[in-house]
Amino acid sequence: MNVIADLCIVPIGVGVSVSPYIAACQPILAEAGLDITLHAYGTNIEGDWDAVFTAIRHCHEAIHRMGAPRITTTLKFGTRTDREQHMADKVDSVKAKLAQG
Amino acid sequence: MNVIADLCIVPIGVGVSVSPYIAACQPILAEAGLDITLHAYGTNIEGDWDAVFTAIRHCHEAIHRMGAPRITTTLKFGTRTDREQHMADKVDSVKAKLAQG
Amino acid sequence: MNVIADLCIVPIGVGVSVSPYIAACQPILAEAGLDITLHAYGTNIEGDWDAVFTAIRHCHEAIHRMGAPRITTTLKFGTRTDREQHMADKVDSVKAKLAQG
Amino acid sequence: MNVIADLCIVPIGVGVSVSPYIAACQPILAEAGLDITLHAYGTNIEGDWDAVFTAIRHCHEAIHRMGAPRITTTLKFGTRTDREQHMADKVDSVKAKLAQG
Repeated sequence: MNVIADLCIVPIGVGVSVSPYIAACQPILAEAGLDITLHAYGTNIEGDWDAVFTAIRHCHEAIHRMGAPRITTTLKFGTRTDREQHMADKVDSVKAKLAQG
Repeated sequence: MNVIADLCIVPIGVGVSVSPYIAACQPILAEAGLDITLHAYGTNIEGDWDAVFTAIRHCHEAIHRMGAPRITTTLKFGTRTDREQHMADKVDSVKAKLAQG
Repeated sequence: MNVIADLCIVPIGVGVSVSPYIAACQPILAEAGLDITLHAYGTNIEGDWDAVFTAIRHCHEAIHRMGAPRITTTLKFGTRTDREQHMADKVDSVKAKLAQG
Repeated sequence: MNVIADLCIVPIGVGVSVSPYIAACQPILAEAGLDITLHAYGTNIEGDWDAVFTAIRHCHEAIHRMGAPRITTTLKFGTRTDREQHMADKVDSVKAKLAQG
């Protein structure tokens, strides 16, 4: 089952700068073979269900190993059975509607 | 790794009433041995990482089988390594602070 | 416009215990005349749109005044025009479906 | 108070294609003077607190007027008092950490 997700991981108890922890997740997600795009409030991820959720677990484990005692994550994710859809399709679909006025 | 989560599953393309789909998830989560509490905007879940995420996958699969062509889910989840914490502890902790004024 | 919401405020840069900050929000929300229910991963809120969002702003301001330099919040909120619905209705609706088997 | 947000609006009861509704929000947000970036699972928004939340209300109102009887939205938003930060800074900060290895 293919999943399109939006991952926002927030380490708690490591001070105000969380970017080193977010940066540490990017290669974990990429090396899992997932399609990823970083944005200003999270990372879009696309891949097979198991690959996506295993990689997210590895992110949590890595951030704890970096010293964060606590993590809270907000994850949005979608599945569909009616047709194949990829991340770029979702953006293109909205942009096509905008172009139509 | 223990996880405390908040699951909000939204089936899309099945009309305005989503409660039959949410109801279908409750036994799936409970039978997976998870501790669950339904609230007005989701279901609190606690359990081992693999049990939690496997059960959530089974919820998506069940809702698709019920006829929903598309699902979008918002999931918050937290892990911590500094101490053991359960769902009731989180609520108690806030209530204790409130009682202190 | 009536709103049912689920508020999860996370202060960043104040250490691992966030419950004092969450506790500080409860009277702000209650004194704004909102119907609130604390759960293990947030607070359910119901009220008029402006009252809800003004109170949430007051929560952010109060938490910053308590010393949190940074806050990230996850808010789910719903509106509907087809019928009146309250927080208890949402839970009851799922429970009714469960009772039907 | 400046806010950086991530808005994901889901109209319910209008079938499986939600892109026309998402597209309708883009000019509402842009004409409110907000800085916006569409991504595969939402729209990043930056602006003054009141402008951001007023525009989001206008999005809900517009989508209801388009015929959606029900809407559920997931919104992440952050404020900070320690320093000024813009959306591009957040992405740059992670990319700088990645470049450092």
